[in-house]
Amino acid sequence: MSVSPFDDPLLAALLGDEESARLFTPETEIGEFNVFEAALARAEAAEGVIPSAAADAIVAAAADLTPDMASLRAAVARDGVVVPEYVRQLRQMLPAAHSEWLHFGTTSQDLIDTALVRRLVPIVMTFDARLTGTLAALDGLDRRFSGNKIMGRTRMQDALPITVADRLRSWREPLVRHRTRLAELKPRLLVLQFGGAVGTRDKLGGKGEAVAGRLADALGLAPAAPWHSQRDNLAEFTAWLALVSGSLGKIGADIVLMAQNTVGEVMLADAGSSSAMPHKANPVRAELLVALAHFTAALSSAMATALVHEQERSGAAWTLEWLTLPQMVMATGAALNTASALLASVTRMGGSG
Amino acid sequence: MSVSPFDDPLLAALLGDEESARLFTPETEIGEFNVFEAALARAEAAEGVIPSAAADAIVAAAADLTPDMASLRAAVARDGVVVPEYVRQLRQMLPAAHSEWLHFGTTSQDLIDTALVRRLVPIVMTFDARLTGTLAALDGLDRRFSGNKIMGRTRMQDALPITVADRLRSWREPLVRHRTRLAELKPRLLVLQFGGAVGTRDKLGGKGEAVAGRLADALGLAPAAPWHSQRDNLAEFTAWLALVSGSLGKIGADIVLMAQNTVGEVMLADAGSSSAMPHKANPVRAELLVALAHFTAALSSAMATALVHEQERSGAAWTLEWLTLPQMVMATGAALNTASALLASVTRMGGSG
Amino acid sequence: MSVSPFDDPLLAALLGDEESARLFTPETEIGEFNVFEAALARAEAAEGVIPSAAADAIVAAAADLTPDMASLRAAVARDGVVVPEYVRQLRQMLPAAHSEWLHFGTTSQDLIDTALVRRLVPIVMTFDARLTGTLAALDGLDRRFSGNKIMGRTRMQDALPITVADRLRSWREPLVRHRTRLAELKPRLLVLQFGGAVGTRDKLGGKGEAVAGRLADALGLAPAAPWHSQRDNLAEFTAWLALVSGSLGKIGADIVLMAQNTVGEVMLADAGSSSAMPHKANPVRAELLVALAHFTAALSSAMATALVHEQERSGAAWTLEWLTLPQMVMATGAALNTASALLASVTRMGGSG
Amino acid sequence: MSVSPFDDPLLAALLGDEESARLFTPETEIGEFNVFEAALARAEAAEGVIPSAAADAIVAAAADLTPDMASLRAAVARDGVVVPEYVRQLRQMLPAAHSEWLHFGTTSQDLIDTALVRRLVPIVMTFDARLTGTLAALDGLDRRFSGNKIMGRTRMQDALPITVADRLRSWREPLVRHRTRLAELKPRLLVLQFGGAVGTRDKLGGKGEAVAGRLADALGLAPAAPWHSQRDNLAEFTAWLALVSGSLGKIGADIVLMAQNTVGEVMLADAGSSSAMPHKANPVRAELLVALAHFTAALSSAMATALVHEQERSGAAWTLEWLTLPQMVMATGAALNTASALLASVTRMGGSG
Repeated sequence: MSVSPFDDPLLAALLGDEESARLFTPETEIGEFNVFEAALARAEAAEGVIPSAAADAIVAAAADLTPDMASLRAAVARDGVVVPEYVRQLRQMLPAAHSEWLHFGTTSQDLIDTALVRRLVPIVMTFDARLTGTLAALDGLDRRFSGNKIMGRTRMQDALPITVADRLRSWREPLVRHRTRLAELKPRLLVLQFGGAVGTRDKLGGKGEAVAGRLADALGLAPAAPWHSQRDNLAEFTAWLALVSGSLGKIGADIVLMAQNTVGEVMLADAGSSSAMPHKANPVRAELLVALAHFTAALSSAMATALVHEQERSGAAWTLEWLTLPQMVMATGAALNTASALLASVTRMGGSG
Repeated sequence: MSVSPFDDPLLAALLGDEESARLFTPETEIGEFNVFEAALARAEAAEGVIPSAAADAIVAAAADLTPDMASLRAAVARDGVVVPEYVRQLRQMLPAAHSEWLHFGTTSQDLIDTALVRRLVPIVMTFDARLTGTLAALDGLDRRFSGNKIMGRTRMQDALPITVADRLRSWREPLVRHRTRLAELKPRLLVLQFGGAVGTRDKLGGKGEAVAGRLADALGLAPAAPWHSQRDNLAEFTAWLALVSGSLGKIGADIVLMAQNTVGEVMLADAGSSSAMPHKANPVRAELLVALAHFTAALSSAMATALVHEQERSGAAWTLEWLTLPQMVMATGAALNTASALLASVTRMGGSG
Repeated sequence: MSVSPFDDPLLAALLGDEESARLFTPETEIGEFNVFEAALARAEAAEGVIPSAAADAIVAAAADLTPDMASLRAAVARDGVVVPEYVRQLRQMLPAAHSEWLHFGTTSQDLIDTALVRRLVPIVMTFDARLTGTLAALDGLDRRFSGNKIMGRTRMQDALPITVADRLRSWREPLVRHRTRLAELKPRLLVLQFGGAVGTRDKLGGKGEAVAGRLADALGLAPAAPWHSQRDNLAEFTAWLALVSGSLGKIGADIVLMAQNTVGEVMLADAGSSSAMPHKANPVRAELLVALAHFTAALSSAMATALVHEQERSGAAWTLEWLTLPQMVMATGAALNTASALLASVTRMGGSG
Repeated sequence: MSVSPFDDPLLAALLGDEESARLFTPETEIGEFNVFEAALARAEAAEGVIPSAAADAIVAAAADLTPDMASLRAAVARDGVVVPEYVRQLRQMLPAAHSEWLHFGTTSQDLIDTALVRRLVPIVMTFDARLTGTLAALDGLDRRFSGNKIMGRTRMQDALPITVADRLRSWREPLVRHRTRLAELKPRLLVLQFGGAVGTRDKLGGKGEAVAGRLADALGLAPAAPWHSQRDNLAEFTAWLALVSGSLGKIGADIVLMAQNTVGEVMLADAGSSSAMPHKANPVRAELLVALAHFTAALSSAMATALVHEQERSGAAWTLEWLTLPQMVMATGAALNTASALLASVTRMGGSG
């Protein structure tokens, strides 16, 4: 039991999602800041907001920066956010003449939010692919076992026999809808954050929209009006994560029940062992899906709470997202990986026990 | 402080949403059961599943039923659901010859879930209209006060002046997206539930889909495969309710802060009075929006938990929805009404305090 | 599915707790206000703060008040709290000469919070008695079935045989500790709220503590410093409610699993029936315990959120309590009643199935 | 924004609690397993359950073990828990003759739960000391500023002037009660977990209680009946953590409001800076307290959910605790540290702004 289950050296084997974890590191985040500041400088130079020479210097500095992590750390403790010190370090690398044009017309939240969204791009793609993979695994089970009988149970009592195909359908259909939902929310989620100090792009005069358009383009995001204090797109995404985890939790709960010794409706290839009872074969992955569903359910309420984001930027609500969103991504990523591994481990469904 | 804030005779004045409350009564629910059984009988007769005479008798009985509420109540305590006793009462009104054809091929969950969805039809329409109304109210404020200055504040500190229009934009845009989201989820939500005992329409042989099509049509819902144990559409809707309440909570939080005596950026026409301090003008509705946002946030986690709906029907997870979903509807309905009333009460935004 | 599950005419049979529900009505609450104002007047007269004649008049008026509910309702919509209008109505019954001494030195929150605490007195007593009753029921099962074997199961797999006594012990011990916890928190919970406008008893000069002492005495509560913005005692109590519901949820989950057809480790006398499958015997009460545990778990987070109660009185956080606390009481009361009924319905545990 | 806010190299400066973090590492946990196995072997030898020579060998092996972390990690992915592979590695270090006596009569959950409780011993002590420190800081502010006037505010509106002492009292009293609560729950929390495979100490015959007594003694914990499936003591502790974080969140919310430019009732020495607006002084720590309160509130519902711990050991509910409890410890530890730093940074409360 460690501080963070998701990057604990031991538990991460169970819970981990290396692909997602790689995206949620300080190094990746600072790399994204560099990308942002360079792209912003180019966009502002192209629109005549800052001198081209300044932009060139900024691009070069951003490419060269080796951040002083100790100073960044110390600054976070004071500022609550890493950006002011990051900008200071980057500025030190610039000739004095260009220094004023760095971070021009932008603010901490533009960097942090855009760096988040940029990392959500591959996550959205990966999770969608994992859902497809899970669906394929369900189709595979359907091909192998669809005609086998299992007992249909309502209120945990035997009702009438059904087929494995019936049960698989109840697992499959929500995942198909989750893919549709993701396609629907994606254009709202994967958008640039760029608003400057109070979300009005005030420093850019009439060039705000043009700069934003170029910046979005360079970063591979859709342009959007500043959304500093509008967190519904993030909360919609985390609600989606909870839906996905919840649907996978239902699969887990069903498999746990099917794997009961007195039921024997599923056989798993590599069930877990016990320190006290070598004869046991524990449906560890199936149980894990239930745990992850309950975990994301609880955290989703924190993200809904964070919608109450007062004024132009709420330090409280914003920090609450940092505490919550990456873990919901990790938990759902782990659930998707776990579901795939679980379904791949099924050697029999239904049929004689 | 009463058992239920939403239909308490006193608090309901603050929290109530009469339009929604009218839909969530036992009488309305049993009325919906009657509609369902009558429409099912007709659909089954049209497909030759049951005799036409039986259908006629069922339609007549459903029109005539005066339910014995005391017996229904006693039965709920035993069965956990009202339907078995409801069907028994309705069956007593039928000639013995037709009795077997009542409730043919259907089950409690078909009635309860469809009765819920049928009541969500007007709710979806009403809430969408209320969002439109709130947007119109915001536009009205924009016309009156858009150019007035207020202080832009980040991390609860003065940052730079902005205009009322800037602030209103941050309130407006999420509501526009909520309307889009509702339009997207509506076709998933407003669907028939019809699956029979274990969700396989097993008693209807090859006629299941045809009966379901006719039934959906008669009930004004889209047809759908049975979704007894697939609760993602409901949880998606309640997540949407939490998004709406959360966005309205942000408006409330902002107005509370603007109404502070030292800030004076908003003036409200009919603020609340105090029993001890007659000089006070309390921004009651704005505070209420914050409370409702936190309430729906907490309940949304229960609905996400209810996605872990084991086997073909989970009494535990299903009952959890009954405890949660109607209240989330009521809280969001109250929040929408409150937001409209609050915005209508604004007599000044920005300008000299 | 109704607005409020707990006082719905049908569902209340399943979920209801009439004893608790009777306490959470507007009539009971206003009755408590009358008790408070009368006791306060007497206490203030005894300490020479207000004239004795005024106190007599107030006591008489409070005894005679027939509140105009329509006006109260209208006022709640404006003031967010019923007290200002209640006081206005009561004041109208007083001779002008005494009118200024009504509600002297007190405030809405004193009345509302104290009225709540006064109603928690019987609830604490009742719930403690119900826990004792549940413990007695468990002892009864122990006497009848303790030696019977059941399978001990870990991670939902057969581990080693245990006895019914072993399983009963795991249900029993947390309930014993809950009684201890209740005894510990009771002196913190069952205390007077009396602070006046801003919680400083400022209007009473040096007589504040003496008046509070007399008032607490008259109301059968312990005296306490004003705690308007200190909600830890209430949140501690609701956390306790969630603990109790959670422990009962474990009993429910175990019985649901024992009652599975393939397991047959428990037999229940009056299991629920199904509208589609007359052969079924559903463990309705056991499932309900699981649902109530999840419901109180979700709501407990709202009460913890309400601890962030800004300044001298937060309308937002206080209202959030009203939305949450009574339902947590009702849900736990229902869980205690349900657990007793469930255990009383056990006709066999373990033994040959 | 990293996977885990609490051990992220940057954010940990803001959120970190090094003392607590040191306890929640795999190394510390495995160290605790070694302590447990050694103490158990000694206790069992003393009671004649295993040979003394075996105990000596086990003690020596536990002292010498250098765990193969890669294998542990691989095993967690399969077994869902690290203990089976840990025991296998430790067993390899024993002469064959003693090998059967290792881990005798115990199980994974005994090791994991006891290792957790052993680490909660210093945490309970530290958090209590931090509460004392926070109380001292409040007393210090009281000495310096108690007589200064601030505005008492209810429903976010000016009510009547109060003194700084009044406000400090509302912050202080809950913390005093939290210390009392901690003292009350401590004897329930800091207890040995020792039950063997199914919580019945079945392998130890009549020696179970004697071995447990010696083991508890050696580990500095109170003895207790096995509580594998009774999680109320842990959920009580995490509810306490949420109470503490919530009360500190109220302090944070108040200071944020006092620090508003238009209010100026508090001055902070080292407020945070902004990347876009160098003139700002952000009350970062105060906002953080609000965020941490909301975070622990949400997680506390997951711990309450985990009370529904089916049968003799629930992999799902137990894993949910691992995902939740350490983070609640870290968040509350961070909140306590943050509160101290925040209060220490106050240079003025009340007085002329």
